[in-house]
Amino acid sequence: MEENDLEGEVSTLKNTWVPTWTKQITIRSLVTSFILGTLFNFIICRLSYTSGLTPNLNVPVGLLGFTVIKYYTALLNKCGLLKQPFTRQENTLIQTCIFASSGIAFSSGTGSYLFGMSPYITAKDHVEDTPINRKRLSLGWMFGFIFAISFVGLFFILPLRKVMILKYKLPYRSRTATAHLINSVHTPTGSKLAKKQVALLFKSFCGSFAFACFQWFFKATNDCGFSSFPTFGLQAYNKRFYFDFSSTYVGIGMISTFNANASLLIGAIISWGILWPWIDRKKGTWYSEDLPPNSLDGMQGYKVYIAIAMILGDGFYQCIYMLLRITYSLSTQYLKDKNSSSVNPEIVHQNSNVDYDDQCRKEYFLKDDIPIWVAITGYVILAVVSIIVVSHYIFPQLKWYHILVCYLIAPILAFFNAYGCGLTGLSLATIYGEVAIIIFSSWVGIANGGIIAGLASCGVMMSFVSTASVLMQDFKTGYLTLTSPRSMLFSEVFGTIIGCVMSPLVFWLFYKAFPIGDNKSTYPSPNGDVYRGISLLGAKGFSYLPKNCLKLAIIFFCIAVLIDVIHDMLKHYENKYKIYRYIPQPMFLAIPFYLGGYFTIDRCIGSLIVYLWEKKNKNKAQHYVPAMAFGLLCGDSLWSVPAAILSLAGTKAPICMKFLSGTVNHNS
Amino acid sequence: MEENDLEGEVSTLKNTWVPTWTKQITIRSLVTSFILGTLFNFIICRLSYTSGLTPNLNVPVGLLGFTVIKYYTALLNKCGLLKQPFTRQENTLIQTCIFASSGIAFSSGTGSYLFGMSPYITAKDHVEDTPINRKRLSLGWMFGFIFAISFVGLFFILPLRKVMILKYKLPYRSRTATAHLINSVHTPTGSKLAKKQVALLFKSFCGSFAFACFQWFFKATNDCGFSSFPTFGLQAYNKRFYFDFSSTYVGIGMISTFNANASLLIGAIISWGILWPWIDRKKGTWYSEDLPPNSLDGMQGYKVYIAIAMILGDGFYQCIYMLLRITYSLSTQYLKDKNSSSVNPEIVHQNSNVDYDDQCRKEYFLKDDIPIWVAITGYVILAVVSIIVVSHYIFPQLKWYHILVCYLIAPILAFFNAYGCGLTGLSLATIYGEVAIIIFSSWVGIANGGIIAGLASCGVMMSFVSTASVLMQDFKTGYLTLTSPRSMLFSEVFGTIIGCVMSPLVFWLFYKAFPIGDNKSTYPSPNGDVYRGISLLGAKGFSYLPKNCLKLAIIFFCIAVLIDVIHDMLKHYENKYKIYRYIPQPMFLAIPFYLGGYFTIDRCIGSLIVYLWEKKNKNKAQHYVPAMAFGLLCGDSLWSVPAAILSLAGTKAPICMKFLSGTVNHNS
Repeated sequence: MEENDLEGEVSTLKNTWVPTWTKQITIRSLVTSFILGTLFNFIICRLSYTSGLTPNLNVPVGLLGFTVIKYYTALLNKCGLLKQPFTRQENTLIQTCIFASSGIAFSSGTGSYLFGMSPYITAKDHVEDTPINRKRLSLGWMFGFIFAISFVGLFFILPLRKVMILKYKLPYRSRTATAHLINSVHTPTGSKLAKKQVALLFKSFCGSFAFACFQWFFKATNDCGFSSFPTFGLQAYNKRFYFDFSSTYVGIGMISTFNANASLLIGAIISWGILWPWIDRKKGTWYSEDLPPNSLDGMQGYKVYIAIAMILGDGFYQCIYMLLRITYSLSTQYLKDKNSSSVNPEIVHQNSNVDYDDQCRKEYFLKDDIPIWVAITGYVILAVVSIIVVSHYIFPQLKWYHILVCYLIAPILAFFNAYGCGLTGLSLATIYGEVAIIIFSSWVGIANGGIIAGLASCGVMMSFVSTASVLMQDFKTGYLTLTSPRSMLFSEVFGTIIGCVMSPLVFWLFYKAFPIGDNKSTYPSPNGDVYRGISLLGAKGFSYLPKNCLKLAIIFFCIAVLIDVIHDMLKHYENKYKIYRYIPQPMFLAIPFYLGGYFTIDRCIGSLIVYLWEKKNKNKAQHYVPAMAFGLLCGDSLWSVPAAILSLAGTKAPICMKFLSGTVNHNS
Repeated sequence: MEENDLEGEVSTLKNTWVPTWTKQITIRSLVTSFILGTLFNFIICRLSYTSGLTPNLNVPVGLLGFTVIKYYTALLNKCGLLKQPFTRQENTLIQTCIFASSGIAFSSGTGSYLFGMSPYITAKDHVEDTPINRKRLSLGWMFGFIFAISFVGLFFILPLRKVMILKYKLPYRSRTATAHLINSVHTPTGSKLAKKQVALLFKSFCGSFAFACFQWFFKATNDCGFSSFPTFGLQAYNKRFYFDFSSTYVGIGMISTFNANASLLIGAIISWGILWPWIDRKKGTWYSEDLPPNSLDGMQGYKVYIAIAMILGDGFYQCIYMLLRITYSLSTQYLKDKNSSSVNPEIVHQNSNVDYDDQCRKEYFLKDDIPIWVAITGYVILAVVSIIVVSHYIFPQLKWYHILVCYLIAPILAFFNAYGCGLTGLSLATIYGEVAIIIFSSWVGIANGGIIAGLASCGVMMSFVSTASVLMQDFKTGYLTLTSPRSMLFSEVFGTIIGCVMSPLVFWLFYKAFPIGDNKSTYPSPNGDVYRGISLLGAKGFSYLPKNCLKLAIIFFCIAVLIDVIHDMLKHYENKYKIYRYIPQPMFLAIPFYLGGYFTIDRCIGSLIVYLWEKKNKNKAQHYVPAMAFGLLCGDSLWSVPAAILSLAGTKAPICMKFLSGTVNHNS
């Protein structure tokens, strides 16, 4: 067996057998890729309709990929049909496919920019709800659009892989961890642990699924059931502080950092606890009392634009900071190059044994080359097709030259993002998308459908930048696990196709079955409002904001930048107490501004579970927390499929668990 | 330290220091006795208002007695005030006091026969609700009655202790276990384990208390809150199948046998699932449709009398069986005596080392003798006082000769019960009480207040029999732990006084704060109805039962006897598969007939927890289940004190968690 040769593999790749690239792609890995790619696409899509925040799912992706195919090969082995042992390359390809597919779930924008075009969202904006500034969602053009924009980035970044990975040796920390995970599960001890983890994952999956099913029975209408449980009393509930029994967010809380969860909670307290009640008292002076509750001219406007201000402030700082770091890194690189040393300054020095590994990896990485003309031809053809399809058939508001400009700026941003992501692990694709919204919505202008144009350009930009950085990250994993770049590209394209097919379908299922976008439902899809809000800003400027909203927005923009500055200053200059760990993150502070605190409570409970578990047995907790968390997340998410089907079939839950005020009930 | 000499104490009592009887009674043990006696009295009282079933609390009694005084002495030791180490005799006295006090909680009948006299219960019976057959409850006469009847039994049984314990060497298995527990916690390892157990007990206590408090906030009225959660749907809820989130019954389920819990569940399914719906369809033919829902002439009558039939059937069998066993045991004893061997045939042979222990125990047991004239004088005086007080001042319906007859029969039953309890661990006090109801209610007759007379005689009889057997059991513990009979008697009287003071007070608190007796509240106090039902039977015969009720009752009486016969036959003759373990117990089958299945669900969940825990770690589970269970029980019970105070103060919970039908809610 292959695994037996591999103990202590992390230190050396000697004696490792690597199949040729065509043999790396096997039917079983394609089947597994397809199943898991679909699953993760579904999960990420659903998350983008809830809070819009997506967690890092590296560990469960690795675990599941490994176990599914492990059981599958064990079965084949029993039937005597197994010809080739399960290789780490297959595992890497499965992961690549999953990451590609779930990347599309995010960049297809069905929960953000595409949804922001829908009449449901536009109805909240009582000024610019004109036909040219809205677009009825339909499966047809969504497929077309997503397919048109999702492949361009891949071909652009392809030739850069050698520079990024071999020359700059960018760390890509999270994917390096993934690669180590893959390498470790292919050792006997790792394999044993993985089995136990998957057993726990399965248990927590079943528990979470059963609990979600149980909850369903009590939710006859939107305002009853566990998800409107006033855990801390009715007053707190009205300020959106309650535990909504969502295993999804408890699970996400478990795999997120304490800082992130605490930031969210603080954000919820600042906004719903202090700021909104204060603004609410200005009703009648700052804004009209007769507005419908969802109107952007009233309370809703403050919520959306203050949140946007913080997000943009944070994005602004991150861009500047990233630019500085990349400039510094590249210039150091350049100087080092001159002195004929090619090691990136940010990478720790490695020993000779690993140097052998590096040699070996380099060899396999270069072996199956992809000619540069393939990449360039692919890029040009796809870009042209994309320009024609998008501007001519889907969004007439966006002219061909707009998209062309987009495709001229995008490569630069994509390079920066892939480089920055490698350096810091942070992808700024969302921010570049938001910048694109502002630029193109103001260029096209409100009268010519600037809002739709802005949102569409966001899609073009975000997809390009995001797919490019995902591919580069996957190349890093492939490099570390001796997987051929050709099979990697194959898998990436396969995953992207899955994503492009699945994302609109998943969206459609939820769109038809649930009241997506309704602030009080399980699927408020907040990014729909946020992205449309940004687009409105770009197209119309600040003039139409309610009174004092701009002032407040500027203040919060500055606060966000300030917090970031303080965080990074402390990180660089104060190492004794590491106070920077306690500085909240502006991006997380901003999310509950719009949604309220309920999901932050879930996440904090997740943190609490991890804290107690770690206190009891730190080692065990670290091994099992991700598995359990993903089980919770996955079970709850998957219940939404039968729930959607029931909803589409018109079946209502039999019971309504309602929470009435004690006094009201008494009087009635 | 005393404990260090005592390792392996179970096998020998050599070198054990025993204080004189006056020194066994210490201030600290009295204080602890008082606190814990009050606590357990409260818990047992409250349980008798819920389902009327009281669990075996030996282990928590032992644990708590030990730890409270342990911490107390540790504290004194730190302050330098400790003069005498904590002895096992003190521990035994604490337990004696607790058992005496909680015994009164049961025999004082505030949840059964006394409550059966109250206008609330009598109002359900629309035929015999005449002034002479009801008695308004008031604290004054309840104190008088309970004090008058609760001490007679003690003095009667006193002289018999030497016969029962030394001569017949009756095993009293549960109290032998208690004594072993006491002896074991006074060893270093036992003490360590006890500390951990108490830590868990405390945690589960806090959790349960907090959860009960949390539940309170959602229960603005009686029909909302967690206790009316339709866990299995609204239809099942209407048939009283639901999980009512009562940690009390989950805890009790954990310390009850699987068989008991399963029997309860089966009983609930047979009655509420099959029998009642069937009888309900006969409405209009078997009984009038216009009856109020609680009337004994309608559905309620079937429920009460079929339950009574099963309880009486089971009691009838148990009495006969006990009589046979006692006769057999005594006759064997007599034959053995003739052949000058005094070992009871039911007791396993003991080795010489333990024979030394026996000598030692015998010595201490006989040392502080209580003269027989004290006992006889005490008995006669108390009986006379009791006759005068009860017949003259409290229940004029019961003439002095009735009570005299009672006190002539009671000693025989008390002897049998104490003997039977020693032999089998089963006290039949309730059954003797029920028999007394039938005899005296029919003797006095309905026109002369036979119902009240029957219920009052039940109190006289049950108290006598019950206190006598409790004392004899405590003597067994005292014998095994070298505790003086004099200090035992002192502690027993002390505990009885606590019980007599507390029981009416606890009842009064609940009576004023909650709708005790309301079938749909947390405190249905089912024995109130059952005992009054029996009394009605005695006074009026079968004539007034609704149609076919007598037939059904006879069938269920026979079924109960049959089940008992099958159980005991299998136990004696089938030892391979031990099928008898799977035969349900008629007494447990009958309880949910009246109440419904909700608390049986709780108990089965308790069983499930134990099952899963034992599957994971059998040893740990056996050590910690009783502690955790008691914590759950105790926390939930104690929350009822603040709840009662809030209710008396007129404070209502702020939220009503209500469960509406999905369709109804939709239409409204």
